[in-house]
Amino acid sequence: MKVFTLIEIARFIGAEIEGDGQKQVSGVAPFEQAGNDQITFAAQAKFLKKIQSTRAGAIIVPLSCADSVFQTTLLRVKNPFASFARVMGMFHPSPKPPPGISPGAQVGRNFRCGKDGSIGYGAIISDNVSIGERVCIHPHVFIGNQVVMGNDVEIHPNVTIAAGCIIGNRVIIHAGSVIGSDGFGFAPEEGGYIKIPHSGIVRIDDDVEIGAGNTIDRATMGQTWIKRGVKTDNLVHIAHNVTIGEDTILVAQVGIAGSTTIGNHAVLAGQVGVSGHLAIGNNVTIGPQAGVAQSIEDGKTVSGSPQMPHKLWLRVQGILPSLPDLKRKISELEKRLGLLEDKNNV
Amino acid sequence: MKVFTLIEIARFIGAEIEGDGQKQVSGVAPFEQAGNDQITFAAQAKFLKKIQSTRAGAIIVPLSCADSVFQTTLLRVKNPFASFARVMGMFHPSPKPPPGISPGAQVGRNFRCGKDGSIGYGAIISDNVSIGERVCIHPHVFIGNQVVMGNDVEIHPNVTIAAGCIIGNRVIIHAGSVIGSDGFGFAPEEGGYIKIPHSGIVRIDDDVEIGAGNTIDRATMGQTWIKRGVKTDNLVHIAHNVTIGEDTILVAQVGIAGSTTIGNHAVLAGQVGVSGHLAIGNNVTIGPQAGVAQSIEDGKTVSGSPQMPHKLWLRVQGILPSLPDLKRKISELEKRLGLLEDKNNV
Amino acid sequence: MKVFTLIEIARFIGAEIEGDGQKQVSGVAPFEQAGNDQITFAAQAKFLKKIQSTRAGAIIVPLSCADSVFQTTLLRVKNPFASFARVMGMFHPSPKPPPGISPGAQVGRNFRCGKDGSIGYGAIISDNVSIGERVCIHPHVFIGNQVVMGNDVEIHPNVTIAAGCIIGNRVIIHAGSVIGSDGFGFAPEEGGYIKIPHSGIVRIDDDVEIGAGNTIDRATMGQTWIKRGVKTDNLVHIAHNVTIGEDTILVAQVGIAGSTTIGNHAVLAGQVGVSGHLAIGNNVTIGPQAGVAQSIEDGKTVSGSPQMPHKLWLRVQGILPSLPDLKRKISELEKRLGLLEDKNNV
Repeated sequence: MKVFTLIEIARFIGAEIEGDGQKQVSGVAPFEQAGNDQITFAAQAKFLKKIQSTRAGAIIVPLSCADSVFQTTLLRVKNPFASFARVMGMFHPSPKPPPGISPGAQVGRNFRCGKDGSIGYGAIISDNVSIGERVCIHPHVFIGNQVVMGNDVEIHPNVTIAAGCIIGNRVIIHAGSVIGSDGFGFAPEEGGYIKIPHSGIVRIDDDVEIGAGNTIDRATMGQTWIKRGVKTDNLVHIAHNVTIGEDTILVAQVGIAGSTTIGNHAVLAGQVGVSGHLAIGNNVTIGPQAGVAQSIEDGKTVSGSPQMPHKLWLRVQGILPSLPDLKRKISELEKRLGLLEDKNNV
Repeated sequence: MKVFTLIEIARFIGAEIEGDGQKQVSGVAPFEQAGNDQITFAAQAKFLKKIQSTRAGAIIVPLSCADSVFQTTLLRVKNPFASFARVMGMFHPSPKPPPGISPGAQVGRNFRCGKDGSIGYGAIISDNVSIGERVCIHPHVFIGNQVVMGNDVEIHPNVTIAAGCIIGNRVIIHAGSVIGSDGFGFAPEEGGYIKIPHSGIVRIDDDVEIGAGNTIDRATMGQTWIKRGVKTDNLVHIAHNVTIGEDTILVAQVGIAGSTTIGNHAVLAGQVGVSGHLAIGNNVTIGPQAGVAQSIEDGKTVSGSPQMPHKLWLRVQGILPSLPDLKRKISELEKRLGLLEDKNNV
Repeated sequence: MKVFTLIEIARFIGAEIEGDGQKQVSGVAPFEQAGNDQITFAAQAKFLKKIQSTRAGAIIVPLSCADSVFQTTLLRVKNPFASFARVMGMFHPSPKPPPGISPGAQVGRNFRCGKDGSIGYGAIISDNVSIGERVCIHPHVFIGNQVVMGNDVEIHPNVTIAAGCIIGNRVIIHAGSVIGSDGFGFAPEEGGYIKIPHSGIVRIDDDVEIGAGNTIDRATMGQTWIKRGVKTDNLVHIAHNVTIGEDTILVAQVGIAGSTTIGNHAVLAGQVGVSGHLAIGNNVTIGPQAGVAQSIEDGKTVSGSPQMPHKLWLRVQGILPSLPDLKRKISELEKRLGLLEDKNNV
């Protein structure tokens, strides 16, 4: 069990401390459940109102929070939720294989390995691979020839990173994902298909997190490009030559077809499908299960399959269940109109 | 080739036997195709009517089935289909690695391993893992620290079970699945995101079967909980802190977002998406590709995206193809009404 | 860097050459970007018009292309795009593990291995496996008992091929895919389910390419059958006892439920779901995200969920966003008609 003093925690998150900094806590907990040996956080007004009554040993609060009159120590920060996430990481670091290269790992020729790395049992590093400092490669990972990675990267078990791919700093790739599979491209010939070789790569920039069971195809030529700060959930498919912009979020089971570009700070909800060769702008939000077949301008929110503006979709989906009523009304109108026409000799 | 006498089979499934119990059969087959050396079953009336004409060596039938007047031996049981499934298992046991711990497996410190297990070549068992009796861990499986499993568990190749997860008795996990990946949770900060560490686990109860290529995320805190008897098909995504109730069925490519609870005996058809923080009741049925954004009460059947009662959805989807007709009718009504208004000087 | 003379390339693709056959090129490039040391292709009129102005060292053109009056060498073929794909493969062959069986591979009893194969580190070949010539099995692949493969097969890392499956010639299976997992079949019993053992296999015929992260279930009895020339994209699910016809294309995240048959030369776009026990004809095209619950005749194009003829779906999806307008019009018609009825004393 890890134990930290509140001063240690305050230093880690850059907090102003009010109360007993020597007090020790041994874990994190949600606001309602935190006990005297735990630290929690309060960001929303509904929790801030109740901070006098909490049993928590310490609370991370906004800078604007009023002084505490009780025993609880306050840690004031700009962004309590983000700071709490950092404190969770102090208590629950990701479990890693032992430091060093496991004797059960297989390392190819000309491996350049930065210091303080850990390469797990059964990991396979092909030839001419270069990785930075403090990189953690879990067991059963396969790394192809000439892959390059930055510092502080973590690759979970059973991941495949195919030859030539480039991974930035602080990237996390969860178990079972495939980076750099061939794109889905064929030239038709006599009723069948000739495979188009894929000589491009996948490039993943700094601070990207890739979920479990993703498949990200290499480019036909050039690169499939996942830019800084992108986060993907599980079972996401990204086709060849796609670009995903900075800090964009792809929720579970999203699929992006080939050569589409998605801007920065976009959010694609679960099970969204995007056709190929489209341009999706910055700050775009796409609702769950939407089917996107047309490009989208910056800042738009769309939903539905086919896509439409989100507010319009809310109205459309409100009307869909009343289609049987509308159909009946139209029939009634026809009858009533017919009677009236008869009466008027039309 | 395996051979059993009908008495052996009757004992295994608890059947009353009518006919020659010493007769041997060497396989199972569908009703129409079964030969004299095979056993089949008849549950529906259409097959029961024909049992005098079958060439099968034996037939598993309901308790209520009339006596046979022919040579075929009858095995009477309460549930012929379920009993037949059990008999199929006698003839076609799942192929397993040799008993014992393969010298090519890697076993960590303090491994508690029940008797009669088989741990395949290239399997990796981390530290402080505990597994029950007759557990089969196929090659290339990765098991994280402190994982606990019950008896008679089977883990297929290339599965990842991350640290701390708890697996019950008689659980089957098919190839390529990931149990215990981090949930998809981030705290927004200055246009980017801070990762929320996931210190919870995945708990899988007795008699669960997980399909191939599933991704089941660990809880942020606490547990993601797959309860007794749940069956998931392939490529299913279950997010952090989800609970799936007993005997619930998730068909292929279903996705369940974070913190949603699904009741017992529910059935979610293929490609269904369920939003986060919802409560889906017991005995709920959800139609294929439905998009569920609202909680559902016990016993309801819903379909569509957006979800609606299934019977309403049947009517709505019947009307959708006639929307062009309805639109035309509305235009005609407007014209006819306009003429009538002119005539009436309105 | 690979270098070929144009004569070598012309021989490989069966081209008629016009110009300097001794000229060497060292790579391929798109038409607009190709330099003097590269070869490109021109198939469409818009590029053929510009071939006098290209800087490319050589151009693959149709047989009908007029003579060049400039220095660029022309390679005339029947199908320039397919020939270009073949030339890409000359310059960018798929990276493979070293020839021979890696000492880090685990090979079972009675392995029949054709000549010139390469079996990567950490690959596991179970007992009684038979593979043809020039087969490449990448690291961390698991091959079950009695699997049979033809010649020139390539299996990428972390793939699972379960016992008994049959793989033809020139088959490619991308990373992380699972071939031969148990089908999703259960017999209901007392509110729970009894597993139906799956004793069938998966059979994959010649020239099939399976994408990354696919799951293809074995048959209950008999075979799940992927016929010659089928291409699947990533994260595709194919259930037990399905048949996919020759040269059919399944785009990413498609799911096919049990016992459905799909004809030859069909195209299923991304995220399509097909229900079980259906017959989809030859040359059928299914639009993205369609939900197919009924069989489809040869040559039809369908879209939508529920499915409808594609041209009808185009009209329906054009009307969906105007549903609020239509609803308002109906209300107006009711009011106007009511006034008219009052005036006519109806």
